[in-house]
Order: sequence, then C-alpha cells, then structure tokens
Amino acid sequence: MEEMKLIEGGVCAAKGFLASGVHCGIRKNKDKKDLALIFSQKPAAAAAVYTVNAVKGAPILVTKQHLQDGMAQAIICNSGNANTCNANGVEIAQQMSQLTAEALQISEKDIVIASTGVIGKPLEIEPIAQGIPSLVKNLGEDSHSAADAIMTTDTKRKEVAVEFTIGGKVCRLGGIAKGSGMIHPDMATMLVFITTDCAISPAMLQQALSGDVKETFNMLSVDGDTSTNDMVTVLANGMAGNEEICEKGEDFQTFMKALNTVTVHLCRSIAADGEGATKLLECKVTGAADCNIAKTVAKSVVCSSLLKAAMFGADANWGRVLCAIGYSKAPVDVQKINVAFQSKAGKIDVCKNGAGIDFSEELAKEILSQEEIEILVELQSGVCSATAWGCDLTYEYVKINGDYRT
Amino acid sequence: MEEMKLIEGGVCAAKGFLASGVHCGIRKNKDKKDLALIFSQKPAAAAAVYTVNAVKGAPILVTKQHLQDGMAQAIICNSGNANTCNANGVEIAQQMSQLTAEALQISEKDIVIASTGVIGKPLEIEPIAQGIPSLVKNLGEDSHSAADAIMTTDTKRKEVAVEFTIGGKVCRLGGIAKGSGMIHPDMATMLVFITTDCAISPAMLQQALSGDVKETFNMLSVDGDTSTNDMVTVLANGMAGNEEICEKGEDFQTFMKALNTVTVHLCRSIAADGEGATKLLECKVTGAADCNIAKTVAKSVVCSSLLKAAMFGADANWGRVLCAIGYSKAPVDVQKINVAFQSKAGKIDVCKNGAGIDFSEELAKEILSQEEIEILVELQSGVCSATAWGCDLTYEYVKINGDYRT
Repeated sequence: MEEMKLIEGGVCAAKGFLASGVHCGIRKNKDKKDLALIFSQKPAAAAAVYTVNAVKGAPILVTKQHLQDGMAQAIICNSGNANTCNANGVEIAQQMSQLTAEALQISEKDIVIASTGVIGKPLEIEPIAQGIPSLVKNLGEDSHSAADAIMTTDTKRKEVAVEFTIGGKVCRLGGIAKGSGMIHPDMATMLVFITTDCAISPAMLQQALSGDVKETFNMLSVDGDTSTNDMVTVLANGMAGNEEICEKGEDFQTFMKALNTVTVHLCRSIAADGEGATKLLECKVTGAADCNIAKTVAKSVVCSSLLKAAMFGADANWGRVLCAIGYSKAPVDVQKINVAFQSKAGKIDVCKNGAGIDFSEELAKEILSQEEIEILVELQSGVCSATAWGCDLTYEYVKINGDYRT
Repeated sequence: MEEMKLIEGGVCAAKGFLASGVHCGIRKNKDKKDLALIFSQKPAAAAAVYTVNAVKGAPILVTKQHLQDGMAQAIICNSGNANTCNANGVEIAQQMSQLTAEALQISEKDIVIASTGVIGKPLEIEPIAQGIPSLVKNLGEDSHSAADAIMTTDTKRKEVAVEFTIGGKVCRLGGIAKGSGMIHPDMATMLVFITTDCAISPAMLQQALSGDVKETFNMLSVDGDTSTNDMVTVLANGMAGNEEICEKGEDFQTFMKALNTVTVHLCRSIAADGEGATKLLECKVTGAADCNIAKTVAKSVVCSSLLKAAMFGADANWGRVLCAIGYSKAPVDVQKINVAFQSKAGKIDVCKNGAGIDFSEELAKEILSQEEIEILVELQSGVCSATAWGCDLTYEYVKINGDYRT
C-alpha cells in the first residue's frame, strides 16, 4: 500500500467541497468567528459517530434523523453556545437546518447540524439567521475560516489532509476538528468534520469510520469528561471518479489508511492543544496479551491526573504509571511491566519487571521537558499494542475552567 | 437508637488503646513525624478492607496474611515512602513487623503494617529499626502524634471519635486517617485506622466495615486515582465490657451507626483537605430508582474535573453537572433532573426538568464562594439517595503534583 501524502487544504482539499466561517454574533468578541459551513457541490455519502453521553445536544438528535438515508450535502456548526439542555433545543436545531437548506437550495434532510460551547444557555436563532446569507456568500476553497469558526477554548486551528490513489484515481481526504476541554470521547468525539472526494458507499463509509474511532478518538483524553456534543462526520462525494468502494478489499484498506492518517493527526492536535496543556502525552503499550488490555492500560495512563501533573512538572514519577495501570482493571502481570520515557531529547528506562531501576534524574528531566512525551509501557505478555493520547495537567487548565462562562 | 456523641481522643478514645508517632528519619524534614504506632493492651478483633488496585503495596500483602485469624494487637505505619513496586518490598514489610512485635513482646502475626508516600523508591529498614524503641517508649493516650506521623501532603490532622452505649455499657470508637491525593478508593481507601473498645466478633466487625465503606470511602474522590496502598483497619478490643456482638440486631445497628459517624467524618475531612483543595464538595442525589443509580450519579459529579474547576471559580456552571450525570452511564431520565447548589449562604435552583432556569448569578456566586458546597441532584424517579464527597480542582493541586518527589 502506498504511503499517504500530507497536503494542504483541510476540508476543502477534496474536489467539490467549499467552506466558510463568519462572526454572526453568538459570541460578543467580534474578532472570533462563531458560525461555520461546509458544502459539497454534489450530494455525498455520509457517516457519523456521536457521543454516548446520555445527555445529548439537540443538534445530534436532529442530525441522526437527517443521516438515516446515509446521504448529506452540508454541515452547519456554531460555536459559543452548545444548544444542549435547552427546552427549545430541537426546535432551534431544526430552524438552523431549515435556514441553511433554503440558502443553499438543498433539502434540509441533507444538513448535518452541530453546536459547541456553554451547555444550558438557550441558543438564539437570530444571529444565526442573520449570519447564514454571508456564510453562503463566502463559500470558497478556504478551510481556515471554517476551522476557526468551530473553535472554543482551542488555541490552534486543527486541519489536515492527505492525497492517495484508488484504482488509478487521485483521491483526497481532509478534516478539521475542534476540541480542547471536556475531551474523553466514547464511541465518538468532540467535533470533527472530514470530507473526501473518494467514491464509497454509505455503508462502507460508516464501517470505516466506526472502526477507525476505536483506535483514534476513543483513545484520546484531555480531562476525562465525555462531552454531550461529540460528533465525527465524514462526507464522501465521489468526485475523484474512482469506482465506488462497496466492499472490503484493497481499496477499502487504502481508504481506511487515509482516514486513519487524518484522524491520528487530529487526535494529536487535540491532545497537544488540550485546555491549558503544555505537552502532548502519547502512551504506547506493547507486549499485551490482547488489544483490549493494551487499550485499557494506555488510556488509564493518559487519564491519570497525578501522572498528567507530574508530566507538567517534568517529574519522572513512574510509580504513577504503575498505579494507573493497576487501577485500570486490565489483567496484567505487574512483575513483568517495563516503563520508559522518550522524547526528542532521548529515551530513559525507569522501571523493569515492576520495580524501580537506577536512572539519571537529570536526563529524565531533560527528556520530560520537551513538548511531545512518549510513555512506553512493555507488558511482556503478548504481541498486541495500542496508543493513547493525552496532555499534561496545568495551572492554566484550572484557570480556564474555573471561570469558563464569564 | 440514641444519637452518637462526638468526643475527643481519636484512636485513643476507646479503652486500652495507646498510640505514638516519631520522626525516625525516612523524611529529611526533622519536624515531620514519619512513623506511627497504635497498640491495644488486649488482643483485638480485627477487620480490614484494601485497595483493589492490581499494583498493591507490600505491606498490604503481609497484613492480609496476618489478619487471616481475625485478630490483631498493633498497627505500625510509616509515611514518606510507600514500599510499593520495590523488589525487596515484602521482606522490608516483614522486618517492620518483626521489629515491632519484638519491641511490644507480641506475635508478629498480630501486627498490621502500612506505608504511604512515593511509590517505587526502595524503603530502608534502618531508620525504622532505630525509631521503633522510642515509638514504643512514647506510647500513650496521644492520638495526635500518630495522626501527624501518617500524614503526607495532608495539611490537616484527621481524627474523630464517638461515644455510644450497647447493653448499658459505654463504648467508644475513634479513628485517624491520612489522604489528600491519589484518592479515589474502590472497596477500600487511603489509610484509616479505627479503634473501639466495643466487644464484637471478627466476622461481624468485617461485615460492619465492608458494608460501611460502600457508602463512605468508596463515595469519595479527590483526583480519580485509586492508590496502591489504600487500607481501612478496625481493631475492637472488647474492653468496654459489653456482651460481644455476634449477630445482626439492635446492638449491631448501633455499632454500625457509630462506625458510620466516624467514617463519614473522616471522608469529609479527607475531601476538604484534598490536595490543593479550597472547598469541600458534597453531591447529594435523591429520587433515584435504585441505590446504584444514586451512587453512580453522585460519584460521577464529584469526579468531574470540569465541575471541580468550576467550583474552584465559584461558577454555577450546572451544565457540567448534567454532562457528568450523562456520561456516568446510569440509566436516568434527563428530562426529570433538577439541580440546585447549597451552602451556608443559601440555596439556589439552577436546572429544572433537565433545562436551565433563570437564577441570580450574584447569589449563586455567593453560595459557591463558601468552603462547603452541596450539589443537590433530584432525579424524580424513585426514593433512593446517595452522597459522594470531593473537592475543587485548583492551581495548588497541579503545583503539588507537578513536583511531588523533590
């Protein structure tokens, strides 16, 4: 299988996709865009996964209905207000959908709706209604403005795209994401919008996405709080001209790899830009007896508040890695666990067979002072592996969340 | 059933119990005691619950063996170094036990051993061996010095006792605890040592303790990290002279109430003194269809990093309460959830039937600026209730844990 080539263009990299983002007035700060639109010139196969939080944003309820036929053509998303836990939430989400459909002259059943921001504050339709005309007018090959408009506490735009070939046809797949706090996806994630011109049936698209999130967004945690509004959506409009992927096989494998390249990139971007984060943590578990054990261990390590705080302080407190493995409930032989820390400054072994070994605190400090830290856990019990992504826990996380609403 | 009378004396309140605490040199700071001893003048019925973390401190392994006969006479505990994940851990724990038994002239099978502090650093026996003679010499009716000696990042001594009557005999039950970080007990807890002069069989004592921790220490969380060294132990030496409690009935109920009064007090003390905490959070869930739902909801709320940070900022961000209920996986009807905040400054309703209601932000701020906050969740679906304890998430938590080992 060929390597994936990273390209520019985000959600506009694939043929036939346009995007835009404007400030419509949901947010007080006029410099912050708060309404985003992604549009496919042709109706597209659509797949989505959603939060498993029992409290679900109204946009998710409406989007689920719209995607029942496996097709969509546009995504509208506002930031600044989540439209969740509001008595009139579904009504507002339907209005957002109708207004967008009218302006684009497509069916409202082909609209994906998303919202992010404060939960429990009623969302006014007026600024959105006023913003939609300019949003549609501004549609262009500009992924940046849409990526900006979906951001909340994010400090960095999250965008990526890849180019690959299927049946001799050049295909592209790209995505944007937002997510910084309330990140602990479960069968879904924060907001991620992915577009591709690859031809693929709705059923295979859903299969690709559902399989991929288990290894990517579901292995990501910033703070252990699973959001009420998580959603990953992929639109595939077929404009690359390849023969439609309708079954498993080499083409599907290539598509899965393209999707995975984009989703892993976005996972790393989200973890690195976790609220208040100064460091990306990547826990790589190897030698597990099965994949679930590897995943459970990796995720437990990146979720530990104590380890996250230690990584902030560049403190090689590996006992907290063992502690987190121990309470994960994964069946592991503690006496076989090896732990090492690695970054671009080098690699250091700190625990062998479940017990501490002598190591240079100085070198450990240097390794842990980098912006990307790998926590390597070898279980010596099999051949399965898994990776989980997280970030350090900092003063800034507390500051951001101590006063989020004001 | 009579009310429980709170009294002074901690673990020395009950007849026949002596305690002491010294600085033996495990810690560098000479002003911080690091070795504690609790001694019963008569062999006592003993019960314990331990951490379910798969990584277990060596003292727990040794203590489990010693308590197989349901009897014990002394508890030795060091702080500053957890004796966990050390190749020679069990050997050191056995030596601690032997040295203590020799000095007290009792069987080493009657010793409970505990350790708390950094994980993975080998524990030297020398300072402990040197400290034991003065520890034994200092034994007296001084619960304070033992309570001080088991503290790590705790900022406050945790001690309580009650007096009650069984069969006309005055009984006393008291305890000390340590715990501030790595607090998310599961079927056990941090370190809690409880003594009583009430006569009760080992089997009934274990039943009382195992039942009680489900409602108390297992409903407590500071940071979601279940420690490797959690332990709650109760010694009952029977010196109150009551007829031994050997079955369920009124006497057992009274004993359970005494135990619960002490454990709830210690839970609240631990939560309020959580690492970096400025506020005690108490989530009271009512109207649940069953007790497990009530417990799951209450614990999910006090465990939410986002809610904890909002409480630090006195921000009435009730959407995070709903979010935490939603991802708890408890089967609740979101449309029936009511939420209110309460403290000594008053009570304010913020959410009715799953949706926001108008409330005074000013009053909410005042209520949430107090040191003890109640988060009241009414599920309107039954008659079961539960309480969970936690604390706010602060800059100080990050500071303490960013550099714990140095």
